[in-house]
Amino acid sequence: MKTLAGGITAPLGFLAAGIATGIKKRGIRDLALLVSERAGPIAGLFTRNRLPAAPVVLDRLHLRHRTGRAIIINSGNANACTGPRGLADAEEMARLVARRLDARPRTVFVGSTGVIGQPLPMSCIRRSLPVLLQRLRRSGGREAARAIMTTDQRIKEVAVQDRIAGRLVTVGGMAKGAGMIHPDMATMLAYLSTDAAIAQSALQQSLRHAVNRSFNCISVDGDTSTNDTVLCLANGMAGNPTLRAGSPGFAAFRRLLDHACHSLAMQVCRDGEGVTKVVQILVVGARSPADARRVAQVVATSCLVKTALFGEDANWGRIMAAIGRAGVGVNPRKIRLSFDGVAIVKGGAGLGPAAERRLTKIVRRQEFTITVDLGQGRAQSRLWTTDLSYNYVRINASYRS
Amino acid sequence: MKTLAGGITAPLGFLAAGIATGIKKRGIRDLALLVSERAGPIAGLFTRNRLPAAPVVLDRLHLRHRTGRAIIINSGNANACTGPRGLADAEEMARLVARRLDARPRTVFVGSTGVIGQPLPMSCIRRSLPVLLQRLRRSGGREAARAIMTTDQRIKEVAVQDRIAGRLVTVGGMAKGAGMIHPDMATMLAYLSTDAAIAQSALQQSLRHAVNRSFNCISVDGDTSTNDTVLCLANGMAGNPTLRAGSPGFAAFRRLLDHACHSLAMQVCRDGEGVTKVVQILVVGARSPADARRVAQVVATSCLVKTALFGEDANWGRIMAAIGRAGVGVNPRKIRLSFDGVAIVKGGAGLGPAAERRLTKIVRRQEFTITVDLGQGRAQSRLWTTDLSYNYVRINASYRS
Repeated sequence: MKTLAGGITAPLGFLAAGIATGIKKRGIRDLALLVSERAGPIAGLFTRNRLPAAPVVLDRLHLRHRTGRAIIINSGNANACTGPRGLADAEEMARLVARRLDARPRTVFVGSTGVIGQPLPMSCIRRSLPVLLQRLRRSGGREAARAIMTTDQRIKEVAVQDRIAGRLVTVGGMAKGAGMIHPDMATMLAYLSTDAAIAQSALQQSLRHAVNRSFNCISVDGDTSTNDTVLCLANGMAGNPTLRAGSPGFAAFRRLLDHACHSLAMQVCRDGEGVTKVVQILVVGARSPADARRVAQVVATSCLVKTALFGEDANWGRIMAAIGRAGVGVNPRKIRLSFDGVAIVKGGAGLGPAAERRLTKIVRRQEFTITVDLGQGRAQSRLWTTDLSYNYVRINASYRS
Repeated sequence: MKTLAGGITAPLGFLAAGIATGIKKRGIRDLALLVSERAGPIAGLFTRNRLPAAPVVLDRLHLRHRTGRAIIINSGNANACTGPRGLADAEEMARLVARRLDARPRTVFVGSTGVIGQPLPMSCIRRSLPVLLQRLRRSGGREAARAIMTTDQRIKEVAVQDRIAGRLVTVGGMAKGAGMIHPDMATMLAYLSTDAAIAQSALQQSLRHAVNRSFNCISVDGDTSTNDTVLCLANGMAGNPTLRAGSPGFAAFRRLLDHACHSLAMQVCRDGEGVTKVVQILVVGARSPADARRVAQVVATSCLVKTALFGEDANWGRIMAAIGRAGVGVNPRKIRLSFDGVAIVKGGAGLGPAAERRLTKIVRRQEFTITVDLGQGRAQSRLWTTDLSYNYVRINASYRS
């Protein structure tokens, strides 16, 4: 597997652009377009939020036809909680792009991110579409990735390549997301492109596999949004024999997609609002995967654990308290805790000052692993969490002002 | 009903003291004792955390005998995650007090609050017990309330009185808690005293009723602790005919206890770590009380909602997003949202700039109510939440240093 530049436009046959239309202030890019030269199978996963934004409602409908040609995404406005008008606006975005590409509207997917509850300024989008299409380029991945950012500090891109059945197959991707990051489900906007020839069912299965091990395993603040979306569009231009579940090369393709999603998810975590640390919470020795995941989630989302991480305080008592309130039957005497392999709790009790001192060095690291061994079975689960800092509060207290 | 001074020692026959023993630094009070002149029925509710601290384990055992005489509480150390030694230390605390009062150890209850995972410095406690008992006074409620504080900024006390069956009956109380405040259950340390004559079963029932409507309805940071405890000790010295469930005067007693618990819970909320606002989340129109409570909890604990409250930003979109991820079936078109009676969402969509402007005034208030009407039924639930501020992060990032 090889890492490339180029992001979402690294695979053959993809063009992208990102421009400023006035949805955001001061000429900041706020509208992105990804177009494949050929229509192809598309896979998608969406937020489980019961109040999904209009573009999520629309994309779910379009996904039934399983074919995609283009994705248009605006930032600065989420088009969520906008009622029937919001859905009409999302439909119009798809229709306008489709008309100019001479494609069916149902092959155009729509994404929005930003403030909830404000009507989308459609005049900005209508007026800017000709320019957006004109700017489409093979090298446009980066400006598209920039145009979907909101509170993100950094552009999030990935591109990986491998030889599959004698052909070079590439997967590219871009993502936005720095707050409202939480399992379950596609926990922000992430778009993937590939030139692999692949059946839609195999693409959907691969995407679910990759998302479950990446975006569904990161947590910045425990909130999930109305807009979370992951889409993967494939155009077959690599010329490989069409991949199906179990066919030769399918495993290699899954590895590419897994890698791309994991990379984007870690970029989202590291760029989390106010984040200074990314910490892996690894729960082992659980009776069931559900138990393991539940404990990992409660530890990963505890405000007290997250502020202690920010303070570089190895306050393992807060981790124990979180384990205890996870609603999972645990035996205190069997619990072991360690930070990057250094044990601090055995048999439910602390190991004393010498162990504490060794921990103080580990908690100063930018990235480390906290392992919780419940000592009850063989199931395990892993999540990545972040610290909770002054900057998280600052960013979110003043987001709309 | 009349409000009195005197806190936990306002009812007849209660003495209290609070002293500094060296568990905390710099001569800060860290050991409290409450003693009733007579033993009497005691009721209790404890954390649901699966890793309860040693004093919780001990108190649960003692509560089986339903009779109490004294409660000893230290701050500065939670005696949690301390293994078999922790339980032996809690037992010793009870035994030492019992010996000096010539009482049975099982009538002495123990509380601890502070850092998790450090062994209790028992030498401080042993050495100081004679002084503590000597200082017991009718007017000692306030210094006892001070001695149980940790990150609390303010002393939390209450005392209310009413005439029941011709006799003046008083309920007093004290509480500590400013972080780790969350339903369910006794969400910090709270101790209540009463001179009512009451059967233990009626006392336990009254306490559960009061706690469900007070301590179980506040949320500062979503974390519950290993130590949360509410105890209510009754000594019968008011001389009223013994109250039982349904007997004359029982309802009046419940009102006293409800009032005392509500007052302490609100004091805890207002003194929450870094809190600048206390906001009531009222969910109405739900299909079931469980649905209503679930929605209220998700809104009340959302970091994004809480930072917006701190920023005095009427960011109702975040409330809608929280409602949507509560896992409760909702119909966007039926949802209404209002702040102190001012509508901002109807039919799932925002009401526009004029309504927003009216909201900006309300979110500047120190206390207000956010009403979520799901429009589906008649069930409702109410919680009190707080904002999430820089100071919350500061306090919790540096708690142990």
